[in-house]
Amino acid sequence: MFLSRPLVFASLLLVVSGQRFVRFLSTDGKEYYGDAILPHNTTDAAHSTTANVITGDILGDFTITKEVKKIEKLLAPLPSERVRTVRMVGLNYVAHINETNATIPGWPILFYKPWTSLNTPSDPIPISPGYQNQTDFVSTMDYETELVVVIKKKAFNITDEEALDHVLGYTVGHDVSHRGWQIDRGGLPQPQFSMGKGADGWAPWGPAIVSTSIIPDPQVLNLWTKVNGVTMQNDTTANMIFGVAHLVSFFSMGTTLLPGDVIFTGTPKGVNLGKVDPVWLTNGDVVEVGLENVGTCTNQLKYVP
Amino acid sequence: MFLSRPLVFASLLLVVSGQRFVRFLSTDGKEYYGDAILPHNTTDAAHSTTANVITGDILGDFTITKEVKKIEKLLAPLPSERVRTVRMVGLNYVAHINETNATIPGWPILFYKPWTSLNTPSDPIPISPGYQNQTDFVSTMDYETELVVVIKKKAFNITDEEALDHVLGYTVGHDVSHRGWQIDRGGLPQPQFSMGKGADGWAPWGPAIVSTSIIPDPQVLNLWTKVNGVTMQNDTTANMIFGVAHLVSFFSMGTTLLPGDVIFTGTPKGVNLGKVDPVWLTNGDVVEVGLENVGTCTNQLKYVP
Repeated sequence: MFLSRPLVFASLLLVVSGQRFVRFLSTDGKEYYGDAILPHNTTDAAHSTTANVITGDILGDFTITKEVKKIEKLLAPLPSERVRTVRMVGLNYVAHINETNATIPGWPILFYKPWTSLNTPSDPIPISPGYQNQTDFVSTMDYETELVVVIKKKAFNITDEEALDHVLGYTVGHDVSHRGWQIDRGGLPQPQFSMGKGADGWAPWGPAIVSTSIIPDPQVLNLWTKVNGVTMQNDTTANMIFGVAHLVSFFSMGTTLLPGDVIFTGTPKGVNLGKVDPVWLTNGDVVEVGLENVGTCTNQLKYVP
Repeated sequence: MFLSRPLVFASLLLVVSGQRFVRFLSTDGKEYYGDAILPHNTTDAAHSTTANVITGDILGDFTITKEVKKIEKLLAPLPSERVRTVRMVGLNYVAHINETNATIPGWPILFYKPWTSLNTPSDPIPISPGYQNQTDFVSTMDYETELVVVIKKKAFNITDEEALDHVLGYTVGHDVSHRGWQIDRGGLPQPQFSMGKGADGWAPWGPAIVSTSIIPDPQVLNLWTKVNGVTMQNDTTANMIFGVAHLVSFFSMGTTLLPGDVIFTGTPKGVNLGKVDPVWLTNGDVVEVGLENVGTCTNQLKYVP
């Protein structure tokens, strides 16, 4: 009991300096980094209309100023060019593995998206003709909601215990997937997932990077997907097979993780893949991906010529 | 016959402006881009000791000056930071597919390496403890020599016919691979290759980007591997299943390829994977990867703590 007082004090201090890092267009037409000011009764930064301007580098030294700017549009929390590498985890929730008839992996399954796949929390997800219905090939567009880790400090051959010190915070991401290109045309019997996941704009993320001071434990968060308002995925990060700390340390094996790198940590059950009667996403569908205490990305599929 | 004269004339013009783009440290301690001056009797830019300095941007507007500088050390043809995305092709030579007991793919198999895996044509390939022998896990380090395509002009949903106009030139690359992490621990029965291929320094490339004016047809080039001086792979790019033009157009499906992006186009037969008596690479082994009319990268495996 004696210890509880200083802990509470520390916690309060952290919350004061703790942040919901956003990047946004303001009404003056300029881009800013900011600490989102949440509206009453929500923790979804997508609903923030104002933010304290941040100067400096959110991946290095920065200052949260007292200047408040209006948010005209939220952008991705970092410009795509600053995200050096986009790591993705496959098959990291047991119920998702079962629904897709896959096998529980002994080690985390790593793949990549190109940085050009990153998208804002609100812009359309473009679907080029090659991913649309063909006469002999069904467009099998699917959703995947995932907790996303943002690296703030270089990591190389680090341990699980050191891992979270290298994390800036967490946000939510959408691993947009075309199952036909991911699996059937990905190189059976051992497909590589890249052609089914890496198109431009197929990785919306945001709305804010919520710092580790606000989310000290990333393994207790609900996450969900709504398609045209209907809930399709609803689970908790407690069900991950490999938690965030292990993923970060594991991926640092012989490999330098850099500030701005992001890790999409896998999706829970509820996707179309494996369903007897899948309802594949199509032109005009609106997908909301959400993470507790972080917020939502809401993007519409848009067929392009 | 009437047409042949202007064609020959155009070809001569191109050769005059055609280049072997190198990046190098000179004896003055500074870095330069250059047009390598080949020594007598070789087309391997790794043996060049001088180059005409290039000013400007080799991915945009540049000038080949008359200033000649000494080459102290060849670097990778582009700084890793300028290579936005490293695309890799799996299983693109039939004899290699047969030796590894894989299946001929209906479409090119795409995976990625992170840009941090890029290495110079001569520096060591670091092998971290996680990739070295364990008490219960053999270090299965393997070589893969590949023709590498360098993109010079943005490409999005382009055709095979348009593809080569988007190419700056060709070089040779080494897709360093750890088979245990690539396959056995990559997520059986459908492994993702990333953990077995993406470590720091596991993609040496160079020594020069040889322009499309010097190599108008990339499908007629010999490529080889020597381990400690012994030839292990020796084949021709004529045996690719999917040629360069199709790979570039195919990967542009819904996806923007950017200037500086590179594509490693797959390895021919002769790797250790699938051999009855493989001789896995180990600490101190020297691997030369070579491509006709381009040159060689020669890198030594080095165990690091």
